[in-house]
Amino acid sequence: MIVVMKTAATKNEIAAIMSRVEEAGCKVHPIHGEDRTVIGVIGDGTSIDRYQIGRMRGVETVVPISKPYKSASREFHPESTVIQVRGVQIGGPDLAIMAGPCSVEGRTHLIETAIACKEAGAQILRGGAFKPRTSPYSFQGLGEEGLRYLAEAREATGMPIITEVMEPGLVPLVAQYADILQIGTRNMQNYALLNAAGKSGMPVLLKRGMSATIEEWLLAAEYILSQHNNQVMLCERGIRTFSKETRNTFDINAIPVAKQLSHLPIIADPSHGTGKWEYVGPVAKAAIAAGADGVIVEVHPQPDQAWSDGRQSLKPEKFAELVQQMKVIAQVVDRNVPEQPEPSDMWQVVMGR
Amino acid sequence: MIVVMKTAATKNEIAAIMSRVEEAGCKVHPIHGEDRTVIGVIGDGTSIDRYQIGRMRGVETVVPISKPYKSASREFHPESTVIQVRGVQIGGPDLAIMAGPCSVEGRTHLIETAIACKEAGAQILRGGAFKPRTSPYSFQGLGEEGLRYLAEAREATGMPIITEVMEPGLVPLVAQYADILQIGTRNMQNYALLNAAGKSGMPVLLKRGMSATIEEWLLAAEYILSQHNNQVMLCERGIRTFSKETRNTFDINAIPVAKQLSHLPIIADPSHGTGKWEYVGPVAKAAIAAGADGVIVEVHPQPDQAWSDGRQSLKPEKFAELVQQMKVIAQVVDRNVPEQPEPSDMWQVVMGR
Amino acid sequence: MIVVMKTAATKNEIAAIMSRVEEAGCKVHPIHGEDRTVIGVIGDGTSIDRYQIGRMRGVETVVPISKPYKSASREFHPESTVIQVRGVQIGGPDLAIMAGPCSVEGRTHLIETAIACKEAGAQILRGGAFKPRTSPYSFQGLGEEGLRYLAEAREATGMPIITEVMEPGLVPLVAQYADILQIGTRNMQNYALLNAAGKSGMPVLLKRGMSATIEEWLLAAEYILSQHNNQVMLCERGIRTFSKETRNTFDINAIPVAKQLSHLPIIADPSHGTGKWEYVGPVAKAAIAAGADGVIVEVHPQPDQAWSDGRQSLKPEKFAELVQQMKVIAQVVDRNVPEQPEPSDMWQVVMGR
Amino acid sequence: MIVVMKTAATKNEIAAIMSRVEEAGCKVHPIHGEDRTVIGVIGDGTSIDRYQIGRMRGVETVVPISKPYKSASREFHPESTVIQVRGVQIGGPDLAIMAGPCSVEGRTHLIETAIACKEAGAQILRGGAFKPRTSPYSFQGLGEEGLRYLAEAREATGMPIITEVMEPGLVPLVAQYADILQIGTRNMQNYALLNAAGKSGMPVLLKRGMSATIEEWLLAAEYILSQHNNQVMLCERGIRTFSKETRNTFDINAIPVAKQLSHLPIIADPSHGTGKWEYVGPVAKAAIAAGADGVIVEVHPQPDQAWSDGRQSLKPEKFAELVQQMKVIAQVVDRNVPEQPEPSDMWQVVMGR
Repeated sequence: MIVVMKTAATKNEIAAIMSRVEEAGCKVHPIHGEDRTVIGVIGDGTSIDRYQIGRMRGVETVVPISKPYKSASREFHPESTVIQVRGVQIGGPDLAIMAGPCSVEGRTHLIETAIACKEAGAQILRGGAFKPRTSPYSFQGLGEEGLRYLAEAREATGMPIITEVMEPGLVPLVAQYADILQIGTRNMQNYALLNAAGKSGMPVLLKRGMSATIEEWLLAAEYILSQHNNQVMLCERGIRTFSKETRNTFDINAIPVAKQLSHLPIIADPSHGTGKWEYVGPVAKAAIAAGADGVIVEVHPQPDQAWSDGRQSLKPEKFAELVQQMKVIAQVVDRNVPEQPEPSDMWQVVMGR
Repeated sequence: MIVVMKTAATKNEIAAIMSRVEEAGCKVHPIHGEDRTVIGVIGDGTSIDRYQIGRMRGVETVVPISKPYKSASREFHPESTVIQVRGVQIGGPDLAIMAGPCSVEGRTHLIETAIACKEAGAQILRGGAFKPRTSPYSFQGLGEEGLRYLAEAREATGMPIITEVMEPGLVPLVAQYADILQIGTRNMQNYALLNAAGKSGMPVLLKRGMSATIEEWLLAAEYILSQHNNQVMLCERGIRTFSKETRNTFDINAIPVAKQLSHLPIIADPSHGTGKWEYVGPVAKAAIAAGADGVIVEVHPQPDQAWSDGRQSLKPEKFAELVQQMKVIAQVVDRNVPEQPEPSDMWQVVMGR
Repeated sequence: MIVVMKTAATKNEIAAIMSRVEEAGCKVHPIHGEDRTVIGVIGDGTSIDRYQIGRMRGVETVVPISKPYKSASREFHPESTVIQVRGVQIGGPDLAIMAGPCSVEGRTHLIETAIACKEAGAQILRGGAFKPRTSPYSFQGLGEEGLRYLAEAREATGMPIITEVMEPGLVPLVAQYADILQIGTRNMQNYALLNAAGKSGMPVLLKRGMSATIEEWLLAAEYILSQHNNQVMLCERGIRTFSKETRNTFDINAIPVAKQLSHLPIIADPSHGTGKWEYVGPVAKAAIAAGADGVIVEVHPQPDQAWSDGRQSLKPEKFAELVQQMKVIAQVVDRNVPEQPEPSDMWQVVMGR
Repeated sequence: MIVVMKTAATKNEIAAIMSRVEEAGCKVHPIHGEDRTVIGVIGDGTSIDRYQIGRMRGVETVVPISKPYKSASREFHPESTVIQVRGVQIGGPDLAIMAGPCSVEGRTHLIETAIACKEAGAQILRGGAFKPRTSPYSFQGLGEEGLRYLAEAREATGMPIITEVMEPGLVPLVAQYADILQIGTRNMQNYALLNAAGKSGMPVLLKRGMSATIEEWLLAAEYILSQHNNQVMLCERGIRTFSKETRNTFDINAIPVAKQLSHLPIIADPSHGTGKWEYVGPVAKAAIAAGADGVIVEVHPQPDQAWSDGRQSLKPEKFAELVQQMKVIAQVVDRNVPEQPEPSDMWQVVMGR
């Protein structure tokens, strides 16, 4: 770290900083400039609290130099992480395409939607069984019943499933059904949940907090990684800004930035990132063009009947068209969209078709 | 709610909206303007999802009219809520002054700080035993040991104590020691925690989320209130903006706005709201002048030795001066700062003074 | 507009609103709901100031229904505007690719850069002669000398030129040299400048203000359009948010939103939108994938020698690669990147090559 | 400045930075840490562009150390600036209280409002003759006619006048009538206007840009100061944030921050800072409690008839009450509200009372 002294700092104040740093086992390296002194600190930054130093007399500000995250950092782990989920790769040369309804609304409805998503080109099925809702009076999800339907939809389609978990106590239950645990934007800094998800050993998709910097997002990932679980994928889902024309502002810059700073895969959520179905396609394509490792898209056969977030759900046919377009863009960023297998016989059994 | 149709909406599209609304048991009231039709919807808004309507053909946008919160709303509960905690009133004519260290650092340290706070004019003692930290490598609090010290400090000083709880599973433990449960900014939408705090029946201080609108904040309060716990106080602690000169931007407007929209008491946290001790006094005074029901301030006898957030902690003598200044300002907003009793004999026993 | 009354509004207060609206020649349409009354106002909204109504007794809020801009609105002008500049089309099936140095630094330097840009695939040359700088001590541009070099570079390459104008008094001078006037982000609401640019009758590229909503941006365009100048193109260049990892946050959502709300072409500026050259390519590709009509990119042969903004400038070879990638993406959005002609003999004359 | 190298930077890359810096006449001071090298640069920072250095190979980031503004900085000018305007002091022990209508609406109306403001306790009269309006279709002010009425109101009341100037070409005209030139939030970085206002030699009130950092605001002040005009006062008028409950977010933190960083007086504008008259009083009081040197408040005898911004205007009687409250708060911050003289005979003449 670099300690910037005030122009009016006294010799004694400078000396006090230097002893404090040295007591902590670090080396100091003062630079006496024309206006002021600046003190370089060499050594293990974790032994000194920069806020404490910042509080000492004569100090103007303290500039951290090392990144506060290690396990999530590409600097220390140059190789990109690739996560394997039931044969689907996330973070490798194939784009990961996740789709499904916002909420699980019923058994038949989910399985039909899952099949439609698969036919359109999805590899992973999303669907909410536990729903975080701003109002206590809104529909809160089907709970374990929803998880069971998700498991059935997996069986029917072969697609691994991702679903949200909202409290540490429910991690074991959700982990019993899901292939990927999703941690939502409101819970990005719910540390008990991050620790529980880390301990589960399961793949985790960590949504960026509504107003989290990329550094805070990577530090939240670090909570999971520090539990010796390195199957973490990041998900950009829009940030909160002054802009009022869309529900959130999808931070397209975050994609190349996160890819540069971290080795973790990054998935784009254009549905929450925009909040209106008309903009989902353009922003999904943009995310792939910017280098995202995949997308997670809300798809609903009848969006105007959806129990939640219908405003931002695509119809399956629109989604299918989008997958074809992403396939073209993928070439430019050295990615593929893997071909989907033929629908299995089992589907017909399940669906009675 | 008001459904605004596109200028190009067809008669059929308008008719479809109207049947959908009527099916839900609401009345429709179309207004055919020069450019477009607007449909007023009368009835219990909770039976219709405005996002579903917004998704229907021909709809440009849907404007909600009723506030989504009821229990937190002053419109439905015009009387200001007053919370009683061991003889201290919050939300009544007296200002509530809460002070103490960011983290509980040890028994003696805490009791000394508590006494200093009381002597300076505080009525409630704050102190963190479980600390939410952005980095998994930072000090996470003393845990239950910290709670025990808080209880001892209460015994020594007579001051009720407030401390943070971070996960639903720990609510019973924290409730055993604390007088007021604090829910932090990162957990404002941790619904399991809100529900658990609500069920505890204890007074809860709910910090505003870093990027929460006032509506979202009141909806979070609504989660607690909907558990039949009406002892909720709001805490403005600064929001996240583009501004980089302070850690957060204290939203002074939020104080009169929240007082107008809600009957719940509102407490200001100028320590987190600014992040630098030099600005704590000015912003604390500002909050009182704007109508806050009290303040919560970080006080530490040696801020440059604090285990967390020393940068924003006041020394007891500065805090004492601030209390005197708030006393003058209180007159202008029809408030009092209650006199503190003389230090009890017990203090001398406890402290060996 | 819709006037939402308070639940406690009296009959007299409601009657007062209604007479006020009728006096202004509009029709009223009251809806008496369960909790409150809502008054629909039909007629020419410009004759009533909604802020005045909002101030009247018993009013909770006023919701505007009509868009405040007309000439910029797609609702009233469904056809996309196509602007022709010396044979280059902006807003039509071809993508418009603008490139060049941030500042004009000298005659030879500019012409060399222009040729490199053209060879890489640019159709329009950008370059700043008058530079808006945050500090009065920074380089402020070569002024008219810079304009002359731009004109020479146009002659050498055949590319039309775009350059910024910063004050109304300089519009005639800049218009003498430039093909497109650029209005910068800091001047988006410099109304005297907007009016002067409008009156010039020249094509104008209007950058979005750093914290302008899309509505405010279109209203700024409306100032130019209201001078009977319909050659306006919008430019998204990043907005200001809490995010600190990039200089600005490129608002990718703004592209489909602005295309939907307005018939004006929209150009993306990924150089300012990110502030770091590494991110320019990803965000440029993203913008095309999201439906932008073109890009404006800072290109400099030796970015680490640039007199301004070198941090965000691409080298010509990187830019050439980017153009090839945009060509592939263009297919997905039904666009072309037009082929560049062979370098003319004239270049060799000019450059002495 | 401090140049932070990447962990992977080579010796050659480090050497290249060092020669570049030395060529510019500065001294280098490398610190070789465990992970990376950091290079301290000593000397006149203006001779090196940090963005150029940031672009060189092997550089991770460049941290500026010196403040980019000098004339506006308290570090270099510890004494607070006091501005004298016709006997009224701004920035000294007396609070400066400015009030008046948003727009000048007519001669009699203005003079009556001015007298009401003076009787309530104002010392300076505000009123807009040239109005910056988001829409080209809104009322744009009475222009020079409005300036004449302001001058008459000054004659009638003895109060100096402040009014906005929006373009460099109009500075001479406005300066002929006004005592203080106001530069609005949209023009904070209109450099031609800043220069013209600086050259006029008149006192200037510089509103903070809607999304300007405090550093950018002080740099804008620096443009005026660099024209040898040191009569600059800053005005905090609310910033743009995600918050939607008020028109802007008044940045109360900015008051102590700006007072610490700069010697210039700072005036609070609670009318624009909140956008609703109910919140103007609380935020005005807060600003004084936080250390502002004064306030500028919109006052209108019949706010619901105001031609602009009636929603945020106080009635004179509310304003009078507010002045009395500010008087009490002033004691706490070592300020006075000066007594107003008795109304002069001249008023009766002017008003025919």
